[in-house]
Parts: sequence; C-alpha cells; structure tokens
Amino acid sequence: MSRPLGIAAIGYAFMGKAHSHAWRNVGAYFDVPAIEQRVLVGRDTAQVSDAAARYGWAESATDWRQVIGRDDVDIVDICAPGWLHAEIAIAALQAGKHVLAEKPLSNTLAESEAMVSAAQVARELGVQSMIGFNYRRVPALAYARQLIAAGRLGTVLQVRASYLQDWLSDRSAPMSWRLRKETAGSGALGDIASHAIDQVQYLLSDTVTEASGRLHTFVGHRPGPDGVEEVTVDDAVWATLSLAGGAVASVEASRVATGRKNSLRIEVYGSGGSLAFDLERLNELEFLDATDPAAEQGSRRIVVTEPEHPYVNAWWPQGHVIGWEHTFTHQIRDFLMAIRDGTPPSPSFEDGLQVQRVMAAIEESAADKSALLQA
Amino acid sequence: MSRPLGIAAIGYAFMGKAHSHAWRNVGAYFDVPAIEQRVLVGRDTAQVSDAAARYGWAESATDWRQVIGRDDVDIVDICAPGWLHAEIAIAALQAGKHVLAEKPLSNTLAESEAMVSAAQVARELGVQSMIGFNYRRVPALAYARQLIAAGRLGTVLQVRASYLQDWLSDRSAPMSWRLRKETAGSGALGDIASHAIDQVQYLLSDTVTEASGRLHTFVGHRPGPDGVEEVTVDDAVWATLSLAGGAVASVEASRVATGRKNSLRIEVYGSGGSLAFDLERLNELEFLDATDPAAEQGSRRIVVTEPEHPYVNAWWPQGHVIGWEHTFTHQIRDFLMAIRDGTPPSPSFEDGLQVQRVMAAIEESAADKSALLQA
Amino acid sequence: MSRPLGIAAIGYAFMGKAHSHAWRNVGAYFDVPAIEQRVLVGRDTAQVSDAAARYGWAESATDWRQVIGRDDVDIVDICAPGWLHAEIAIAALQAGKHVLAEKPLSNTLAESEAMVSAAQVARELGVQSMIGFNYRRVPALAYARQLIAAGRLGTVLQVRASYLQDWLSDRSAPMSWRLRKETAGSGALGDIASHAIDQVQYLLSDTVTEASGRLHTFVGHRPGPDGVEEVTVDDAVWATLSLAGGAVASVEASRVATGRKNSLRIEVYGSGGSLAFDLERLNELEFLDATDPAAEQGSRRIVVTEPEHPYVNAWWPQGHVIGWEHTFTHQIRDFLMAIRDGTPPSPSFEDGLQVQRVMAAIEESAADKSALLQA
Amino acid sequence: MSRPLGIAAIGYAFMGKAHSHAWRNVGAYFDVPAIEQRVLVGRDTAQVSDAAARYGWAESATDWRQVIGRDDVDIVDICAPGWLHAEIAIAALQAGKHVLAEKPLSNTLAESEAMVSAAQVARELGVQSMIGFNYRRVPALAYARQLIAAGRLGTVLQVRASYLQDWLSDRSAPMSWRLRKETAGSGALGDIASHAIDQVQYLLSDTVTEASGRLHTFVGHRPGPDGVEEVTVDDAVWATLSLAGGAVASVEASRVATGRKNSLRIEVYGSGGSLAFDLERLNELEFLDATDPAAEQGSRRIVVTEPEHPYVNAWWPQGHVIGWEHTFTHQIRDFLMAIRDGTPPSPSFEDGLQVQRVMAAIEESAADKSALLQA
Repeated sequence: MSRPLGIAAIGYAFMGKAHSHAWRNVGAYFDVPAIEQRVLVGRDTAQVSDAAARYGWAESATDWRQVIGRDDVDIVDICAPGWLHAEIAIAALQAGKHVLAEKPLSNTLAESEAMVSAAQVARELGVQSMIGFNYRRVPALAYARQLIAAGRLGTVLQVRASYLQDWLSDRSAPMSWRLRKETAGSGALGDIASHAIDQVQYLLSDTVTEASGRLHTFVGHRPGPDGVEEVTVDDAVWATLSLAGGAVASVEASRVATGRKNSLRIEVYGSGGSLAFDLERLNELEFLDATDPAAEQGSRRIVVTEPEHPYVNAWWPQGHVIGWEHTFTHQIRDFLMAIRDGTPPSPSFEDGLQVQRVMAAIEESAADKSALLQA
Repeated sequence: MSRPLGIAAIGYAFMGKAHSHAWRNVGAYFDVPAIEQRVLVGRDTAQVSDAAARYGWAESATDWRQVIGRDDVDIVDICAPGWLHAEIAIAALQAGKHVLAEKPLSNTLAESEAMVSAAQVARELGVQSMIGFNYRRVPALAYARQLIAAGRLGTVLQVRASYLQDWLSDRSAPMSWRLRKETAGSGALGDIASHAIDQVQYLLSDTVTEASGRLHTFVGHRPGPDGVEEVTVDDAVWATLSLAGGAVASVEASRVATGRKNSLRIEVYGSGGSLAFDLERLNELEFLDATDPAAEQGSRRIVVTEPEHPYVNAWWPQGHVIGWEHTFTHQIRDFLMAIRDGTPPSPSFEDGLQVQRVMAAIEESAADKSALLQA
Repeated sequence: MSRPLGIAAIGYAFMGKAHSHAWRNVGAYFDVPAIEQRVLVGRDTAQVSDAAARYGWAESATDWRQVIGRDDVDIVDICAPGWLHAEIAIAALQAGKHVLAEKPLSNTLAESEAMVSAAQVARELGVQSMIGFNYRRVPALAYARQLIAAGRLGTVLQVRASYLQDWLSDRSAPMSWRLRKETAGSGALGDIASHAIDQVQYLLSDTVTEASGRLHTFVGHRPGPDGVEEVTVDDAVWATLSLAGGAVASVEASRVATGRKNSLRIEVYGSGGSLAFDLERLNELEFLDATDPAAEQGSRRIVVTEPEHPYVNAWWPQGHVIGWEHTFTHQIRDFLMAIRDGTPPSPSFEDGLQVQRVMAAIEESAADKSALLQA
Repeated sequence: MSRPLGIAAIGYAFMGKAHSHAWRNVGAYFDVPAIEQRVLVGRDTAQVSDAAARYGWAESATDWRQVIGRDDVDIVDICAPGWLHAEIAIAALQAGKHVLAEKPLSNTLAESEAMVSAAQVARELGVQSMIGFNYRRVPALAYARQLIAAGRLGTVLQVRASYLQDWLSDRSAPMSWRLRKETAGSGALGDIASHAIDQVQYLLSDTVTEASGRLHTFVGHRPGPDGVEEVTVDDAVWATLSLAGGAVASVEASRVATGRKNSLRIEVYGSGGSLAFDLERLNELEFLDATDPAAEQGSRRIVVTEPEHPYVNAWWPQGHVIGWEHTFTHQIRDFLMAIRDGTPPSPSFEDGLQVQRVMAAIEESAADKSALLQA
C-alpha cells in the first residue's frame, strides 16, 4: 500500500457529516493505513462544496458515477438514502472500489440480493464491502458480545431489544420522505428496528430463523406542503424472533415514545447472568453475574472506559466518556484494517440481507394474526 | 354497623401472610369500619393454628365450608390457590358474605364466568365482591392513573408493560404445582402477565379488544420428587393488545429474566407526556411533561411520598418509603370503605374475567402465527 | 419468662406511631418473647386515648411517672422529645424497667452522661437499655457492615455521609420548637447528622477521635405565632471526622436541600471496593468489588431482598421491598432478643453519648476556623 | 483577518492530544475564524514529530521559545505541566500571541500573579488570554448556569461539589511527579478540586470570600524507581466555601474513591429548585423545579442534546450523545470567537488566580482546626 487510500463519500447530510468526522479523525487514534479524504459527492453544487470544505474533503462533486470511476478513489462510502444504495454500491464494486454502505442495505429484498451477488463477485477479486450497522462498534456492545461469547451469561434464553424515539408523537409533525413507503421502504421497522434486529444476532452470534410481529401507524395522515397526505409506513413495530440456538428475542421500535430521543435499549438474559444497555448512556453497560453469591448479586454499572474494553485504549483515561460519533470512527477503523489485511469486513452485505429477511418475515406475519376477545 | 365486621381468611401461605398484615394494620392508618380477625382457615391443623396465633387471628379452622356459614363472619378473604377460588367464592357469596378473592379470578374461563354470575346476584342483595389486583393500590400507580385521567399525557398511544422474574432461569429448579397446567392454569401468563394486563386497562381506564401473542417454555422438563416431569405451562409470554381507545400495549412476562426478582415495569407514552414505573422501586414514578419547554424536559423521578399522593397521607413524612405489603393494606381499606358505603368495590369479578379473556385471546393467537424466514 | 413482657410507650406522635407499628407487628415475623402493648402515655388525654385505640395499646395514660412504676410494665419505650429523655430514662431504669430511648440520647452532654451512669448501674442488675439509631436495622446497611467487617472493601479509607432534607428551604416556613436551641439542642446536627455520624462508626466498627466542622443558619428569622423569631440552631452542618483506624469521613447535613426529602446517603471507599446507599431507596445497596477484573468492575445495584440478607428472611420473597417503618420492627426484634438472652443490646447509651461527643467537637471547632481569601 | 490564524500547541501528552482534537475539528461544527495547526512543540524530537503527524499539525518543534517568536503563529496553546505555565505564557503574551493555558494557572500564587499582570498588559494591546477550565463548556453545565442566572432555582443556598477518582486507592500505585509538591504544587486540591471550585463560582456567577478545609494523605510513601519515596501532596481534600452572595459550598476531592473514575459531581440547592450533574454522565442534567405542584415534583433527567441547549445545535440530533473531548472543542470555539470580536475570553487568568487564592485559603485553614473528642 504505497500511497494513501483515496476516499469518496456520497451524501453530506446527517450520515455524511458523521462519516466525515470518522474519516477526519480515525488516523489520530488508530494505526490504520493512511487515507485521504478526496471527494464529497452531493446533488447541490453549492451545499456540497461548502460541506466538503467544512468536513475536510479536498474536493466536491455532484456526479457519483464519475467519481466512482476515478483512479484516485479506492473506497466509496455510501451515505445516500436507501433507494440509491443498490445502484451505487453495485456500480462501485464493479469498478473495483471497496464499498461501505449505510444501513439499511437497500429498500427491497430484491435490490439487497443483487447487492449481495455483486459483493460476492467483488470479494473474489479482493474488493471488500461492509454495511454500516455502526452500533456494533459501541464499546459497551462490543464488550457485551465478548462477555456472551465467553459464556459469562451461560445459555442465553431471552433478549429484549427496543429502539424508542419520539419525533412523531406530535400529531402535527409534517409529512416527509421517511413516511412514504416508496422512498423509505418502511418506517420504524427499517429505520430503527433494523438496528435492534442486527444487535440481537450480533450479540448472540446467532441467526434468526422465525419471526412474528405487528406494525401500527398511530397517525395516519400528516400535513404535507401541498395538503394532508397519507402516511404509508409504520410508526411502531413489535416482534418476537426465534434464534437458531433456542433463544427468543422481543423487538419493539417506536417513533411515538414521548421523551425517548434515541433509546436503543437491549437486555440479554442467560442462565448464568444478564446484560442491559441503553444508547442514551452509551458508555455504560449493566452486567449481572448470577454465579456471584446470591446476597452479593446485582446489576453492575460498568463504565466502559477501561483500556481493556474494545476500542477504548485509543481514547482517554478512565471515566472520560466518548460520544456517539465515534461508533463511526471505530467502524472505519475496522473497515480499513480489513482492507489492509485482505479479509472480509463484518458486518457484510449478507448480514444486511439477513436483517432484511427478518423484517420481511415480520411484515408477512403482521398481515393476519390477532384474536378478538370473546364476548 | 353496630358491631365490628368479622373476617375469615382462607389460606395462610404467602398471600395469607400478606393479607393478615393488612387486616392487622389497616385500622391504625385509615378510618375504616371496625373489624375483627375472627378465623384463619387452612388444611393443616397445626400449621394454621400457629399461623393464626402469629398473624393476629382469634381462631383457626380447617373446614372453609363451616367457616363461611358462621354468623360472626361477614367477610371471606380467599387466599387459597386458584383452582379453589370458584367453589369457595360462590359458596361464600351465596351465604351472604362479602368476598375478596386473590387473582387470578380462577383457572378457567368457565369458572370465572360462574363467579361473575354469583357476584352479580349477590351484588343485588348488597353483598360485595372484589378481586385482588393489589398493584392498583401502589400509590405511584394510583397516582399515574390520576395523571392520565387528568390528561397530563395527552392522548395515550403506546404502553409497554413487562413483568420479569427469574426463579426459573436455573435449569435445575424443581417441578412444582405452578408448572402444571391442571393446577396453575398457565405459567407466567396467569401468574404475572395478568397483573400487567390489568394495569394496562386500569391506568388507561380503557378496555382491550384484541390481542395477539406468543408463549414459550424454555425448559421443558424439570426434576420432580419422582423423576423428571414435563412442564406444561409457559415460562414466558409476549403479547400486543389493542385498546378500544386506540392505544396499543405490549406485554412481556418471564420467569427466566436473570437478575429481575419482581420487576413489574410499565411505561406509558402519550402525545403530551410519558410515565414509567418499576415495582422494585415502588415508591417512585417517572413522569415527563412534554408541554415543558424542550430544553427543560426530562423524566422526573417523583418520590411518591407526598401527602397529596393517593393513600400516602396515612403514613409517614415525605421521603419515608413504604413497602410492598401495604398495597394489601390499601386494598382492604378500599374494600372496607365500599362495604361501608354499599358501593361495589373495584376491581370487580367482571374486571377479573376481562383479564382472563385477554389471556385466552393471547393463548388462541399464540397457536399459529410466526413466519419462517425466506431462504 | 412465664408471662408476656408488658410494654409502655411514651409519646404518640411521629415516633410513637412508628414504634407502635413495630410492637404490633414484631411477633408476626420474628420469634421473639411474647409481649403485650399495655399502655401508651401522652400529655393530652383525649388524643392519647384515641392513639392508643388505633395503635393497638390496651390502655392510655398521661402520667409517665405512674406508668413506670406499674408492675405489669417491663419495658419503657421513650418516644418523647429529647429534653425529657434523661429524666424519664433514669427514673425507668431505677424502677428496674428495660429502656429503649429514641435518639438523640438527650439534648446535652451532661444529661447524656447521667443517663450512661444510670444505664451502667442498671445493666449490672440485668436491666437493659438501648438507643434508637434505627437505621442500623436497615437490611442494606446491616449487610454493608457485614461486607466491611468481612474485608470485602479492603482497608476503608474514606467515607462520605450526607443527610439531606428540604423542609426549611422555603424561607416562609414557620418557627417551631425544632428551631430553638433550648428545646432542640441543635438543628440539622442533632436531628439528622447524628444518624450519619452513628452510621460512620457503625459501618466501620470504628470510633471517631477528632472532628472539625462548620454550622450555618441560612434563614436567621422565621415567623412564629407571635411575630418574627430568631432561629437559634443550624440549618446545615459540614464536618470531617478522623477515625481511630485511619479513615476520614465527611458528614454533611442540611434542611435546605431542595428536593431531597429524606436522603441519608452514605458512600464508603476502601482499598478493595466501595459501597453506596441512599435511604430514599432503602432496599438497595451499591457494591463495587475492586478485585473483579478491571473490565468487569462496576457498582452492583444489590436489591437487598434475598433471604441471606439481614432480617429479610422474615418478610417476603425476593424483589418484594419493605418500608421505612420496619427499621423499628427490626430494632425491637433485636432489643427483645437481647432482653431474652440477658445480653446488652446495641447501640448502647454509651454509643449515643459517643455520637454526642462527636457533635460537641464539631460545634467547638466550628467556632473559629475559616480563612479569608488574600486580596 | 485575512489569513488563517496560526496555532502552536506546546505539549503532546494527554492534554495535547485533547486540544489537538479540538483544533482539528472545531471548524467542522462551528463558524469560527479559519485556523491552521502550524506547529506542535515537545521535548522529545521523535515523539513530538510522530504526534504532530497523527494529530494534524503541519510541523513539530522542540524549542518553545523559538516557536512563540514565529510570525506565522498567532495563538499559543499551553498544554505543558503547571510548573512551565508562567514562563511560557508571559513570554508568549509579550511576543503578542494570544494564549490559552491549561489549568491550573500555575503552581504558585506568585507565578499566577505575574501571569495576570502580563495578561492585563497584553489585553490593553488586544492580545487575549484564557485559562482552560474546560468543564465550563460541558453543555449541561453551561445550561445549568443559564437556569441559575434565570432564577429557576430561586436564591441559591447550598452547593455540593465533589470530584472523585481512584487511581491512588491502590496502595502499591507508584510514585510520580504528580505526587511531589515541587512539581505538582498540590495533589487532589490543584488537580481536580480546582475544577470543582471553578464550577461553584461559574455556576453561581459568584465569588468565594472565605474558605476552610482539610487535606489528607492516606498513603504517605510510595514506590519510586529508586526506592520508596515520600508523597508530599494530598490524596484528598475537604472544604467549605462562603460565597459573597450568601451561599455555602462544600468541596470534596479524592484520588482514593474506589470505583469513581472521573466523577465530578455537582449539586446546587436553591429556594426554588435544585440541580445535579455528574461528569461520568456528561450529557445529562438533573433539574428539580420546586414551583411545580408538590405531587408532580421530581428531579428531571434532562438529556442535554436539544438544539436549544448550549453548543448542541452544532452536533447531532436529539439523544445522540457527545463525548468528553468536545468540552475542548467548545472552549476553542469560544476562544476563537473572542479573538475575532476583540473581547476578553472567559475564564480569564484573573479567574484562574481567584481559584488559586481559594486553594491557598483552604491550605492555610487546614493547618490547624480540628477538635479532639472529650474523653
């Protein structure tokens, strides 16, 4: 690797800003291959030019097709909306560029399957790909997975995963592309429950085999710029998932949970212990060791800032907490290391597709399943 | 009411001990009609005699049929197991005794319907009946209901109720009558999810119309005194409930949630605010007022020990917390006041039957509903 | 012990109500000698008669001198204000009655010393005495002491104890006997800091040898029935205490800590671990074991409701929390067991005197000790 | 301001790394004057060269005197140890460079006074200076100050500030320059209590006029490279501070508080409300509004991630927490804005000197003040 890897990022909104932070900072904390932030791509010439300057990119551009063809671009980081993922990712992989795609993998199963096929072909040629389930890089969750894998929870029986937000609990909140099935694919299901589903499989190193669930839209119509429009995605979703290893997980996601801003909460219960995590306190992990004497047992509030914890050694002394954005820094660290080593990064596009299959099964089961009460 | 009301309690185990505490203490804190703890009934002569002496009862007896016929008994408090409820309650009501029955109302829908019929007949004659969903008398939950009824949460959209225990997370825990369908009716569903279901309807002053759910037994066989036996009830249950008023509630109950000893947790999300409660901290209620300025919003940890809070004025100064057993003291206080006033106490046997109908709908829906993942 | 022990309680206000609860219930939960609530003593004939009926006393009386002379009274429980303690306690002990005195032992060092002398004489004759630092009987704190004594914290270095209330943060709160030096002795110091001081010595099984501190009255005048009066006691106190074993404890108590209703918080830091407790969550204890691997360390939230925890086996299953009033039930349980066994109960009047010596040293040091900032 | 401001940072260890992060990122989030990271200064040629490359600096150097003379350097950021502060800062100010100095201002009152003099002379010439009490830029604390200034707490009466760490609770932890008076000035007092003292004055917009306190060294000797050495600074400090406005603050800092890694905890109690904060949860602020109806009062857990909160709008959507390092980003943002506007930044060197005067008063009062207990 004689010259720095050239990076192109597509999208400069929320995710583009967060990914840029990661590219700009990863080298200050981790021993990764040298990179250069070559070009930031967006639709609005002026805005993308301004964002590129702020976020540390050498240039900006508006045509992603041209950018993925550039010789000085080695990695394409897709932060565009979901409906563009398949087209960009497949083209980039075919152009021999390593691809990091934000979640969800795409808006449809068919597109995701095509992306997986492209990734498999590219992988044979040494071209890597990864999906951005960034919460796998929260130190507390990465550490939780280690504890489970090491058997500290015994046999995992039950998982409770919820992702609660509240930006739609206000009935007058306006219509947006996120509330239309054509553009968003689904609502809370794809946007946030997907993170919870991925975590269940990630933490348990296991696979969902069966799902049942329910979707609900509390507010069916919302004001748009041209009048009232119908909301065609779910505000909330509830599901139970069966895992191959015998565990059962409940997943609940909502955009109307007033007062919860970004609360991905996960509880894992095993025969030998339990864990609990909340994204609003992402530097903490609760761990109960059921093999302690009964009188001494209690949920330990671990402040996940010890050098022994995943990723933490790169940062600050104990008790100095890190922020949400560094989940992306860690993600890019791992992506770059995989590229350096020529090993497939994780989570793969296949992992992204598996999450979408779980979502599809939830939607299928949601069609018909509740029982009326007997009179 | 010229002489003290005579009380007979049937059952001296866990619930009998708790109810005895309430009968023994209610008059020291509340201005209720005078009562006398006349007789405690149980099957074992020696044990019930000892329990009666400890718990403040004047006498003990072993034949409940004889006791409910005594002239000096006005109230029959049924703390016996569920499979005895119907027979005792109906006989007592027919004998003109007011009846307080522990939950669940009974083990079958048919028995519960018969109990409701008996209660309706008796009520016409001024004979009262009540089911012991004691958590309605937790001050924090009674206050939560007041806040909701006063509109402080706006329109309630979503409820999350869970009841987590862990006494079965140990695979070697022994078989017992609670794990056999014939004696227990169901597992976590009837024992603890029933409380959660009752709370959903109580807090929202609303009625469940539709349910879907799933039951699971993690450990199918357990050691009994005569060898391994099959567990025929659920270890855990998950359900979503639709309420007449438009809200959706999730209910999850488990006996394998390692580290959770008695955690009935309830979260209520409305358009104007939210509430959260955990029985392991029963003197606290979290309340978020979404009409506060955004910067000042936060979940308030209310210590529910102010004189303005329900039931609290009878007890101690602010910040002096009360225990779980006083939910029964409050329950008996309300039961006695209803008898004094000749008004039907709440929750009624009908309320108990409604909870069982919800449970039946969950069981029905659980029979067939999950979707396999696509290959 | 052929007949039940006869009890007389003096005082029927807050403490009298709490002690009555304990006498009424102790036998239902613990195997103690039989007792009878013979007589409740108070100044107001009608009120004490009413209180006696509510709280389970056979009779009431207004002359404590006569009562302590009764042959059917074996134990005198002093719930009267502090300025009466010495006179009653000494007379009762001299009459051969076992004495339980509420804290503080008395309002002056001299009175307390006289009480100790009387207790020592009586003890030689088999007449027992005890001071009511009831928080020693919080299961979580009794368990904390066991952990420390067992070396689970290594060498204790530092203790932080605070007792925060807020009933005086309102500038218009009225004058009362608690705010006059003549009647109350001191303010936050004697009323609540005394509990914190006792806990420091109790938890560490150690003795304070040296103290320095400061007292402050934030609101110097308050409205009385006959006009504005001067407040002559402290609203808040701060102190550091040196213990014989080398630890240093800080103590802070306040009646103006807005929002803290009854928060006795204690943190203990040792070379091998730490503990934290808050009376507003009296069923919980936080314990950190510093000998756990660094990555797994965290403050454990122990729900102190296991049968292995002190006093708990008498009550309810795990996770069913108890209330503040049972600290008195436990206290009386231990007092009765000591009487049965003929052993001196703990804490003794000497322990009460020691706490007052610490308070006297704080007051002494508070007289002159701060440094003005250099200009 | 026609060309970017040139920055030189002196020191590349813990603070240098944190400040570098801030310089590298401030422009991506805030509209500040353009800057360039020109040169990083350190003693070790190889190490500082490596650090400069990692942290985004154009060059490295080993002679700070030469660097402060460079024309392309406009700002000198002093991250060197305290004993170097005075010399560097005074020279840099005299060279016409704006200076940001890490806290403590210096190790002695005399040096600090000289620095203040130099800052005052420079200020007249438009050359700015600032001391790095970075916790003033925690959004939750900046917001807390706004709430207090707006009167939401009424009259502030009492403050409790503690800063607890535990890296010395292990008796075998080695000797270091931080434990010698000559190099460190003091122990917990200057290192961490200084932050707490600054916060008290900052939050209340008030000034300490009087102090009393105590210092203690729990472990008097520690292993050094050449044998056991004497520890000549404090492990822990306790103090009470009187503020000009009538409030009283307690300050406690410790390096032996096992399990507390970086817990700066501040509680503020006023006649109309209270606040609580813990640095280990730096995105949260607890606020109790005592003007709410009593039954509804409770400490609100505000997640300080709303766009209305100080500094937050630059970052992420609600509920996406930020890390400790951004306190420095905000500090530099404010420093740059002050330079742009030609206004003195805050906190000034005078503010730093005032904190040191408080520390000196604590040390003075600590010399003699405790009372032995009466025998």
